[in-house]
Amino acid sequence: MTSGGLISGFSGFSREDKIKLAASFTGNPELFIRELRDHWHHDHLRQKQYESLTENVVSNFFLPYSLVPNFKINGKDYIVPMVTEESSVVTACASAAKFWWPLGGFYTRIEEMEKPGHIHFIWKGGPREISEFFTWIEPGLFDAVKPVTGKMSKRGGGVSRIQLNDCSATLPGYYQVEVSFQTADAMGANFINTCLEIMAGYILQQADQKGLSDRLEIIMSVLSNFTQHCKVKCSVSCRIHELSKLHSGADGLAFARKFETSVMIARHSLHRAVTNNKGIYNGIDGVLIATGNDFRAAEAAGHAWAAKDGVYRGLTEVELDGNYFTCGIEIPLSVGVVGGLTSLHPMARISLMLLNNPDAAGLMAVVAAAGLANNFSAIRALITGGIQKGHMQLHLANLLSQLGATDREKERAIEYFKQKTVTHTGVEEFIDRIRKENPED
Amino acid sequence: MTSGGLISGFSGFSREDKIKLAASFTGNPELFIRELRDHWHHDHLRQKQYESLTENVVSNFFLPYSLVPNFKINGKDYIVPMVTEESSVVTACASAAKFWWPLGGFYTRIEEMEKPGHIHFIWKGGPREISEFFTWIEPGLFDAVKPVTGKMSKRGGGVSRIQLNDCSATLPGYYQVEVSFQTADAMGANFINTCLEIMAGYILQQADQKGLSDRLEIIMSVLSNFTQHCKVKCSVSCRIHELSKLHSGADGLAFARKFETSVMIARHSLHRAVTNNKGIYNGIDGVLIATGNDFRAAEAAGHAWAAKDGVYRGLTEVELDGNYFTCGIEIPLSVGVVGGLTSLHPMARISLMLLNNPDAAGLMAVVAAAGLANNFSAIRALITGGIQKGHMQLHLANLLSQLGATDREKERAIEYFKQKTVTHTGVEEFIDRIRKENPED
Repeated sequence: MTSGGLISGFSGFSREDKIKLAASFTGNPELFIRELRDHWHHDHLRQKQYESLTENVVSNFFLPYSLVPNFKINGKDYIVPMVTEESSVVTACASAAKFWWPLGGFYTRIEEMEKPGHIHFIWKGGPREISEFFTWIEPGLFDAVKPVTGKMSKRGGGVSRIQLNDCSATLPGYYQVEVSFQTADAMGANFINTCLEIMAGYILQQADQKGLSDRLEIIMSVLSNFTQHCKVKCSVSCRIHELSKLHSGADGLAFARKFETSVMIARHSLHRAVTNNKGIYNGIDGVLIATGNDFRAAEAAGHAWAAKDGVYRGLTEVELDGNYFTCGIEIPLSVGVVGGLTSLHPMARISLMLLNNPDAAGLMAVVAAAGLANNFSAIRALITGGIQKGHMQLHLANLLSQLGATDREKERAIEYFKQKTVTHTGVEEFIDRIRKENPED
Repeated sequence: MTSGGLISGFSGFSREDKIKLAASFTGNPELFIRELRDHWHHDHLRQKQYESLTENVVSNFFLPYSLVPNFKINGKDYIVPMVTEESSVVTACASAAKFWWPLGGFYTRIEEMEKPGHIHFIWKGGPREISEFFTWIEPGLFDAVKPVTGKMSKRGGGVSRIQLNDCSATLPGYYQVEVSFQTADAMGANFINTCLEIMAGYILQQADQKGLSDRLEIIMSVLSNFTQHCKVKCSVSCRIHELSKLHSGADGLAFARKFETSVMIARHSLHRAVTNNKGIYNGIDGVLIATGNDFRAAEAAGHAWAAKDGVYRGLTEVELDGNYFTCGIEIPLSVGVVGGLTSLHPMARISLMLLNNPDAAGLMAVVAAAGLANNFSAIRALITGGIQKGHMQLHLANLLSQLGATDREKERAIEYFKQKTVTHTGVEEFIDRIRKENPED
């Protein structure tokens, strides 16, 4: 690694200069530059548009854009767009969607859609004084943000509640002004942060008027991604005997019981819980990316929610009730269908179009269904033949590409490995062997 | 949404037929088809390669590929590749990297790199019997996987430890065979799952021989993403007075104390903890995607780790020790630099090249540094002027693009909003106004 000293003004460099400088850090500048250029959009204006999404952009990273058919969600049929680099995820979702389609599909429920933000501050004074001060400023806090809530009000959003939280028992002097927002069909991150910063300014101004400035220190004003009051429940349900279709040779009840045990394990074993939930987010993130939404926000909220009762648990729930099997998840989720990337990214726009331009609640339903679908298929595979058989058959194609196999070699390998365990070494040896046998192949 | 009934055989459809069918679900089939085609790679073979990464792929989703200069990590200089759709993340990382560069940059430490997998089973019998059975089969478990560990052994990986865990106190009859793996420079998910399934087969076979088949039910065999023994620590450190450079008008100690308070808040407030950690993963996921790694695995492990002591906490730690300020994170992280997407995705390959083709430990260091950098800048912004000012200036460009502003209009808007709060309504009104003033502009 060559050290050329501190680089100044990089963000102001032309795209060409940025690339040239980075290329000098690599062992093969020509290849590096060629690959970056090779992934520009062919239309110069479109490329410029992609480059304006974030900063220091020099090319595009391609992620496979896939279609998952046969999702029935709340009685409507969908082909769900999904962006994931992980093989098997799309197949897993498609297989669950197809199984549940004739059984009524996925049902979802959204109870509330409120998102929180906080002005975190330290108060050097008594609890009664700060409580009185808060009561005095509360109406003004609502008024202070009126100049910026115009657009959001038109959409039916805004500030719904403001409260003072005394957190001084956990950290001396620590209080929060907690603000609850409705952000309608927007994710609303910028809206929330802008409101909070304006409110923080108002609080400082009022504290000054009351001579409290030196006793009140605002530490920060920021939205919380822990959207516990913006949640979606999603479930599937069928008569237990229907489950026998999922695994030849097993009866539905045996499958249901084993499924139940696996879900119980994910509730009691941290190691299993993490992987169970990871599988849910394989599906969730795929739809979030495809629709231009922030998957880090969903992940942070969901995994923290999984730990809400002091133990990190699997998010899947299952119920065997008489003749019925029900399986579901409940997750916090904050998405948007207007503003942000949803309107700037051409592929995000067509993803929403494919979903019939849902509102935020409608998109939450689809995202949750994709999460449950992937989880259901993962558990099904794990408790029946194991996940590796199907997965490695899909992975075989990747291994063969990596080894530069010809179409003929691929065909022979796929035939051969139908009955064999797919391993990297095994595939490599097989290709070596057939190449030696047929050097001109 | 039109319902055309269950779609059969979709995965076998040609790409054209998949697209045509999906287009029929949209209100504008021409636009839908045009956008998908417009995002194909210009080189037909390359496009085919992208389509082979996962299933039902019909196009590519473009994510901005960015460069972040001035990362000094363990004494070496890097330009870090980052893929993120969220504006400000790249700027935040770049600003922290540049600040810390002359102060020695980021230091990282990796203590161990062991990854766990489990054979989860129910045992209907006494604890002594299963313990004796395990002792009897243990050597055979190591032997059973030898046929598939060839390639991994050559790289220095393999099975390092096998133990029996009695979990029957939490769930009646529940036990685990816990297997610890070394996966060298591979992420190793397929390797681990293949080994576990072979071991599970061996256990069933041995149970059969001992006449224990009807008392031992294997529920599933699967890796765990909770990689608590594959962790990286990353920190930055400087003399406190150096911090005064971060905020004009404030002394270093005041900044350090406020920073410390904000970190304490993230340790005690769940709402703040989730957002603090989300910010860390903004940076982490950016590098993981750019290098072809699985960000869902990192997210699941990291957020579960944040909840390890029964309360979900911020992952950032800070120490003010005499004249020194130190800030760091410790996170579980499983990455690969060989196998998987890292070798199949052209952009992932050049990302690794840009990082001087690191081993897995080297990549963990870069990923962690990006996480800490983003977090540091986020906290800095929050405790000084607030995050919205800088963020909304960056977002202004997006709003203007969305409103179809001309270059001239953009210039005027950027000038105008230097002194104003950027809101959607405000920008819209400004553009409307100048368009009315200068209709021919």
